[in-house]
Order: sequence, then structure tokens, then C-alpha cells
Amino acid sequence: MIIVKIGGSKGIDDAPLLDDISQLIKSGKEVLLVHGGSEETNQVAEALGHPPKFVTSVSGFESRFTDRKTLEIFTMVYCGRRNKSLVEGLQQRGINAVGLSGADGRVFEGPIKTSVKVIEDGKKKMLRGDNTGKVTKVNTELLDVLRSAGYMPVLCPPAISEEESKMMNVDGDRAAAMLAAAYGAEALVILSNVPGLLKNIDDGVDNPDNLVAEIELSSCADPYEFAKGRMKKKIMGAVEAVDSGVERVVLASANVDKPISSALNGGGTHIYRAAASAAASNAG
Amino acid sequence: MIIVKIGGSKGIDDAPLLDDISQLIKSGKEVLLVHGGSEETNQVAEALGHPPKFVTSVSGFESRFTDRKTLEIFTMVYCGRRNKSLVEGLQQRGINAVGLSGADGRVFEGPIKTSVKVIEDGKKKMLRGDNTGKVTKVNTELLDVLRSAGYMPVLCPPAISEEESKMMNVDGDRAAAMLAAAYGAEALVILSNVPGLLKNIDDGVDNPDNLVAEIELSSCADPYEFAKGRMKKKIMGAVEAVDSGVERVVLASANVDKPISSALNGGGTHIYRAAASAAASNAG
Repeated sequence: MIIVKIGGSKGIDDAPLLDDISQLIKSGKEVLLVHGGSEETNQVAEALGHPPKFVTSVSGFESRFTDRKTLEIFTMVYCGRRNKSLVEGLQQRGINAVGLSGADGRVFEGPIKTSVKVIEDGKKKMLRGDNTGKVTKVNTELLDVLRSAGYMPVLCPPAISEEESKMMNVDGDRAAAMLAAAYGAEALVILSNVPGLLKNIDDGVDNPDNLVAEIELSSCADPYEFAKGRMKKKIMGAVEAVDSGVERVVLASANVDKPISSALNGGGTHIYRAAASAAASNAG
Repeated sequence: MIIVKIGGSKGIDDAPLLDDISQLIKSGKEVLLVHGGSEETNQVAEALGHPPKFVTSVSGFESRFTDRKTLEIFTMVYCGRRNKSLVEGLQQRGINAVGLSGADGRVFEGPIKTSVKVIEDGKKKMLRGDNTGKVTKVNTELLDVLRSAGYMPVLCPPAISEEESKMMNVDGDRAAAMLAAAYGAEALVILSNVPGLLKNIDDGVDNPDNLVAEIELSSCADPYEFAKGRMKKKIMGAVEAVDSGVERVVLASANVDKPISSALNGGGTHIYRAAASAAASNAG
């Protein structure tokens, strides 16, 4: 099983990804797709007069403050606009896709946090009215029911809270990591608008020496060494996935021909536990 | 099987419907839900600077002119905002709902029309760039796969075109009618913000004599006699459903306690083929 996460940042073209997925599936590979939609959520939120608010937690991670109105806009873009566009693109390529949010059939479930401790202007502050959470449970049973009937699930946040059954914003990369862990996937490929983890984000993406080609977690003192902003969560998801049995995580660009195949063949930043398992995975 | 369609007009409260559905399902009834989202689509389209355009076809039916941008806004509201809100509401009532558009797994499929002959200012005119269609095929196989695994599908437009696999706007009432026909449902209950078909729409909804209590199609010269505007399509869907084997169609208010049970027990406007079959259905 290969889990692919396609981001929702500016300038991502879905066509190469959809071409690649449909070819991989037709050649017998098992692929599940998770997607984001952050950039368009920002745009729609602005247009609807409810601009996005990003906060930095005391532990240094940036996230979207998700009040109920923001959550509603979030579902519009993630579950509506983006999910159905990907489903349509796959249907046009002969793949019988079915789009599901984490709330549908409780695909992504976990605890909700309704307040978040943030740092604003250097001060610690508690913000209430948040609807964010963490995926701790993946309903692979529903996904397998669909897969065995010939359908390909296309998944996205929001998730659903385990006690109150409230929709909640969850990080898409980490949801994809939990999905990959649930399947013990051979790979989790996280595609975005950058070619992988960069040593110096100001140095641009065209210098190949600027790309971290691999992080071998067993010998790496600090996997977060080069991670800034959003990239911190991607690395966190990658570490969680590898620690939960996923053979390798690849951070790579969505905007190349055959982005998944290219990532699996060595492109982007490869994250894995130890060199031996990586070699085995390459050979496989 | 009971098919319920909940409209998307102004002033519809989903809570009584969701309470009623969950009780019916827990008492062993089979229920499928189809929903609309027209009013909120109008609001979001206005806010996003792409106001809705309604046209009247040469045959006198009003519909939304659906260019690609409108279709994208349509998916945001129908598949995102409204669908996930209903899924969440059912999950909170212990029903394991799964929201699907007609494009997901090709649930609603049929031919697309990319141009529409309309009457504007008394003149006939051809409008191009439309994305509307008609549901001629319902993928009950996917719905049954989900149902037999314990999930309740919650469905909405858009549908998908049979040749090009393009998303297309379809009338929700008529999609629900096709679904009811596909299951040979005992009833199709179409809930909206009015108590049924009114003889005189200017006479208000509080006068019970103003409500058409039943239309027995076998003895009715013109079922469209009192239908104006949007109601024409509801009657068309009802006639199609009854002609395709659905025992009865009920047009009723969503804004009453137990709206489905109340409609099945005689509320609203009942449409059926002949009195005998209606009595049989009442007895059952």
C-alpha cells in the first residue's frame, strides 16, 4: 500500500498526480489519496469576510485557529471544492473514486481540543472556541469495504471527535501518517509545492545541494534541524509514520511528471528508520 | 425503503428531520437521505462575486444556469457545507452516516447538456457553457455495499456525466425520485419550507383549505394545475417516481416535529397512482 498526500498550497497542479495515480492503480498498485486545501480555504475565508487566523502553539507549531465558522468554510473547500475536483479527475481517468472526509463513516477519529495555548506578541495566551484535534483512529474497515468493491477512497480533513462527534480540523499530513501507519504502508509520499526539505529555505529550490536527500532517523540527532513553519508538522508526521511501521516517508514536489513514481525512485527527501530497511524497501 | 429529500431553501431547520431519521432507523426502517443547498449556494455565489443566474427553459421550467465557476461553488455548498453538516448531525445521533455526491462512485449518472434553450425578455435564446444534466442511472450497488456494512449514505448533487465523467448540476428532487424508483421505495418524502402543494401561493400556508391534500394521478387531468416555479419540478419528480414504481410521494414541511413520520401519516400533499394502491400502502 502507498499512501499519497497532496498538499493544498499555492501553485499545485493536480494533473500529473492524477495521471500517475491512475497508471499506478492500473498496474496493480494499491494507492490511497489524502489531500489538503489550505490556500483556497484562506482565499474563500477572506472573500466571505472571515479571514484566516494562524497561531503558534507554545511548543512552536503553527496551526489554523478553527472557530465554527472557519470549520464550515474549511469543509466547503476541503470536502466540496477540492475533494470533488480530485474525484472528478480520477473518474475521468477511469478510476472509480469515492471522496470521504474524516467525518464520513468516522474515517478519521480522535480527541478534540477546544482551546489552544498560543504565543502572541511574545506572551502566552489561551484561545477558546477552537475545533482542532488529532487523529488517533482510522476506520480502515470502511476503506476496505469500498476498496474490495472496486472503489478508491479519496480522503481529507476534517476528522470527527470521538466523544461528541463534532467535526474538527486535523493536520492533513499527520492524518495521512496515521492512515499509512494503520496499513503498515510501504511508503507515505507527501507531495507539495517544494521539492522536499530544504536546508535553507531562502536559498531557493533550484540548487540540488540545498535539498536534504535523506534523514535516517536511527542516526539523526535532530530530524527537525532544518524544518521551519509548516515543514515542522510534515517532519512530525513522517517521524510518527516511521515509528508506527511505515517503511519510508518521502517529501517531494507535486509539480513534476509522475510525482509519486519519481518520489519512490529517489526524488525528494527520504525519511526512514535505518539504512538496512531502506535498502530492503528499495529492492522491493 | 423510504427516500427522504430535504430541500435547501431559506428557513429550513435540519434538527427535527435528523431526530426523526435516527429514530426511524433505530426502529428498523430503511431510510436514505438526499439533500439540496440552493439558498446557501446563492449566498456564497453572491459573496464570491459570481451571482446566481436562473433561466426559464422554453418548456417553462426554471433552473440554475451552471457555468463551471457556479458548479465549483455548488460543490462547496452541497458536498461541503451542507452534506458534512448533515453527516455530523447524524453521527451525533448515533447513525454512522457517509456523505456522497453523485460523482462519488458514480452514484448519480446521466447525460449532460452544455447548452440550454431559454426564454429571456420574451425571446428564445441559446445559452452555452451550462453544466446541467439528468440522472438516468443510480449506483445502488455502492449504496448497498455501504448499507450492508452498517453505514447510511447521505446523498446530494452534483451528478456525473456518463461519457465525459464531468460533474453536472442535476435537480435534487428528480435525483431523489430516480433513487426512490431504483429501490421501488414505499415512499419518497420531499421536505421543504412549505407544507405541500398550495392552491394559491399568495394565500399563505396557514389556511389548511389552501393545501392540495392529494393528487391521484389515475384520475387527475393535470397534476401541474397548481404548480408554480420550483414546485413544477417537484411535481415532475413525483410523477416520474410514481410512474417508475414508487408507491407514493409526499410533499411536506421540514419544519414540524417528526417531519417524515408526520408526512407518512397523512400530512402534506400525497401523490399516488390510484386510490387502491394508496390504501394498500397506508395499511402496510
